[in-house]
Amino acid sequence: MTCPFCRAIENGDIFFASAHFAGIANIAPIVPGHSLLVPRRHIERLTQLGPKELAELAPAAHQVGEILGEAFRSTGVNWSIQDGSEAGQTVLHLHLHILPRCHGDMPAPGDWYPRVERWDKEILGSARRPRLPDDARAAITLRLRDIARKRGFKN
Amino acid sequence: MTCPFCRAIENGDIFFASAHFAGIANIAPIVPGHSLLVPRRHIERLTQLGPKELAELAPAAHQVGEILGEAFRSTGVNWSIQDGSEAGQTVLHLHLHILPRCHGDMPAPGDWYPRVERWDKEILGSARRPRLPDDARAAITLRLRDIARKRGFKN
Repeated sequence: MTCPFCRAIENGDIFFASAHFAGIANIAPIVPGHSLLVPRRHIERLTQLGPKELAELAPAAHQVGEILGEAFRSTGVNWSIQDGSEAGQTVLHLHLHILPRCHGDMPAPGDWYPRVERWDKEILGSARRPRLPDDARAAITLRLRDIARKRGFKN
Repeated sequence: MTCPFCRAIENGDIFFASAHFAGIANIAPIVPGHSLLVPRRHIERLTQLGPKELAELAPAAHQVGEILGEAFRSTGVNWSIQDGSEAGQTVLHLHLHILPRCHGDMPAPGDWYPRVERWDKEILGSARRPRLPDDARAAITLRLRDIARKRGFKN
């Protein structure tokens, strides 16, 4: 299994699950809490989502945003999808970037996107991009899972 | 009425409407077809969306993407929300940027985001940002509305 998102789902390495989506803490976050919402099915493109999945996407993303807001005391959020290589997609399992944002977390609020772009390019590379140690990421996942449970979200 | 999105909805200057969302052709597109999906209610933040609105967001965005794909022969799409000033939001009516993407439309696929960011900063300014002439934008809106109707989308 070479898809990193399918592997995370298979290993239970997620903090949120709805009927069709999973929330994964990013192994190389560009801001604390940078997470990904991915369909549980291995599909590449938006057009492959069925009606039930499409209807669940934004509610699931919003719940993930609420979890991150509580965990990271964030007051804003970015959502971003790159659908297709022409749009900058490099990991071929559809994913929505969800970034909790705090005042002053970057020199300018818009600095997040070039970093998301680099993330997508380099995530499959080896040591080029700094990654969270496994235990740090596991601790974040546990913390987020705990918040999700307290809020009554499935996971 | 100072909100540019409320004004577009009020004037019928939209090419797509679902129960809770409207699709608006951008007056200053960063790629041909750059559009915005906005809630018909004037709300600022994601947290203000009700359950029905949240469930409708991605299906509506996907329909807008299909319309743009047909009109602009695009093969990819970017979705982006900046929710909160910390996240780069400057127009205080929630909006999802939807950009149809074609191979080679920008020097690098990721060049779109800094332009979206500038768009959000400068859209309310005066002559700093090049805008489509009114008749060109009206023609695009009519063309998109025609495609939406043929596909059976409400508008």
